[in-house]
Amino acid sequence: MAKKEILVVGSAALDTVEAPAGKVDDILGGSSFYFSTAASLLAPVRIVAVTGSDFPKEKIEFLKSRDVDLEGLETAEGETFRWGGRYYEDPNKRDTLFTRLGVFEQFQPKIPNHFKSTPLVFLGNIHPALQSQVLDQIDNPELVVMDTMNFWINGTPDELREVLKRVDVIMINDEEATDLTGKTDLLAAVDQIYTFGPKNIVIKKGQHGAMLFRENGEMFSLPAFPVRKVVDPTGAGDTFAGGFMGYLASHPLEDKMTWRHAVLMGSVLGGFVVEDFSMEKTKVLTQQDIDTRIEQYKELVAF
Amino acid sequence: MAKKEILVVGSAALDTVEAPAGKVDDILGGSSFYFSTAASLLAPVRIVAVTGSDFPKEKIEFLKSRDVDLEGLETAEGETFRWGGRYYEDPNKRDTLFTRLGVFEQFQPKIPNHFKSTPLVFLGNIHPALQSQVLDQIDNPELVVMDTMNFWINGTPDELREVLKRVDVIMINDEEATDLTGKTDLLAAVDQIYTFGPKNIVIKKGQHGAMLFRENGEMFSLPAFPVRKVVDPTGAGDTFAGGFMGYLASHPLEDKMTWRHAVLMGSVLGGFVVEDFSMEKTKVLTQQDIDTRIEQYKELVAF
Repeated sequence: MAKKEILVVGSAALDTVEAPAGKVDDILGGSSFYFSTAASLLAPVRIVAVTGSDFPKEKIEFLKSRDVDLEGLETAEGETFRWGGRYYEDPNKRDTLFTRLGVFEQFQPKIPNHFKSTPLVFLGNIHPALQSQVLDQIDNPELVVMDTMNFWINGTPDELREVLKRVDVIMINDEEATDLTGKTDLLAAVDQIYTFGPKNIVIKKGQHGAMLFRENGEMFSLPAFPVRKVVDPTGAGDTFAGGFMGYLASHPLEDKMTWRHAVLMGSVLGGFVVEDFSMEKTKVLTQQDIDTRIEQYKELVAF
Repeated sequence: MAKKEILVVGSAALDTVEAPAGKVDDILGGSSFYFSTAASLLAPVRIVAVTGSDFPKEKIEFLKSRDVDLEGLETAEGETFRWGGRYYEDPNKRDTLFTRLGVFEQFQPKIPNHFKSTPLVFLGNIHPALQSQVLDQIDNPELVVMDTMNFWINGTPDELREVLKRVDVIMINDEEATDLTGKTDLLAAVDQIYTFGPKNIVIKKGQHGAMLFRENGEMFSLPAFPVRKVVDPTGAGDTFAGGFMGYLASHPLEDKMTWRHAVLMGSVLGGFVVEDFSMEKTKVLTQQDIDTRIEQYKELVAF
């Protein structure tokens, strides 16, 4: 089938990462770029984000060859959003060393006219009021997927609830599901999230895999593909989202297996991206790499 | 094929459990009973354990109807091992309220003569020196599976290493794998555990499922079946082990799928046992309950 376009609205950042594998400065980061690099392996992508006047544009040159439309990538006077973090031998531990919002602090997503009819929309992890502003500018999207985090769940609950009413899929981790609902039991949390609006819930569990819940009661659980050497866990969630939506964009949404295969594709790409810093791995992935990993995945879970 | 016998050596306890679902006193507990109740659904079981003179024998009457040989269940003068614990809404949190070893402190496993040729042996979580003593008394077992815990890994590392050389399968959780090897990376930990002796490694991850690693490089990963209401997580690991070994006892060990199905059976029974206190649920399970859950499991992971 024809590939549908995907609109992503999120952050554009330069990251400084310290990890057991080394230290890297000002590498490409941010949810919109992690997402796009993954999703564009599978479908056309349109980015809405903001960088500062200091942003080295050559870092995203590779996106142009991948059918990524950068018309919504605004350049504002000032510094690009910068994030610094440190990882340890245990990749589940992370310290944020610094956050300098720069031009991201005043980000007001402006959707270019020819983006307004994009069928699939991914609302990256930004202020829920901005997520709502994005939806106000979009004409009848076929499917809206949102990400969020504890900072918004606890800090801006009312705005978050407004967005939740308008999305088809929420994609969060298990801790965030508990924060959002007050329920430590995942199934109880899922039941409550349905009442907030989303009919589909994706729970990302990092090294423990991912689960999909649908309002008809369907559950799908997929373990993570074991990664021998995690170099840089940054962006795994956005890469997962990119793989998930890229798959949805090129397969019939009414088919139950489409949704499960989308979780698989998210897990495959999320498993690849952590094998190197920034998007180094997902930048160079081939269809052959993906196909091979899917075969290995099938072998991993077969019984 | 014929069902092989399984020998289990472990604790026999009376537990007091406080949980959000209620408080229960002196309920049947201990690794040997949790294991046997599960394994005896699938194969004949022989128990070696010790209870005190205060042990209410009617609590294990049901095991006799299940082809469980209790000849190795010794009664010693004194108090039965008692453990008290408290669980919270988040079933991953647990406080131990008291531990009274009683007669278990002097436990010296004595294997009855007609148990000595048992083909499958499960060494429950007891002092590794006792685990070795059990193996000294057994004639050429076909398969030995061991459990252990951080207390022995850190407290009696030399004795533990001696047992590890003599077992075919180690069954531990992910934290214990890290403790045993000093590696936070699971695949690195697994590689190191092979060098200690076991050619098969089962990593239990509780609500995140279980993994099987085999020395030929094979990996199998199975998510947990989501449980809507966890009443009492006590004994989930021993019940898993019982399902795992019960399956191995009745299927050809040389078949790769036997091992994967054994992990599935362990997960199925481990998922059931937490739905009620003590062994209340696994006591009354029917083949129909198990078959239905296996079908639901297949649906959960299908893609």
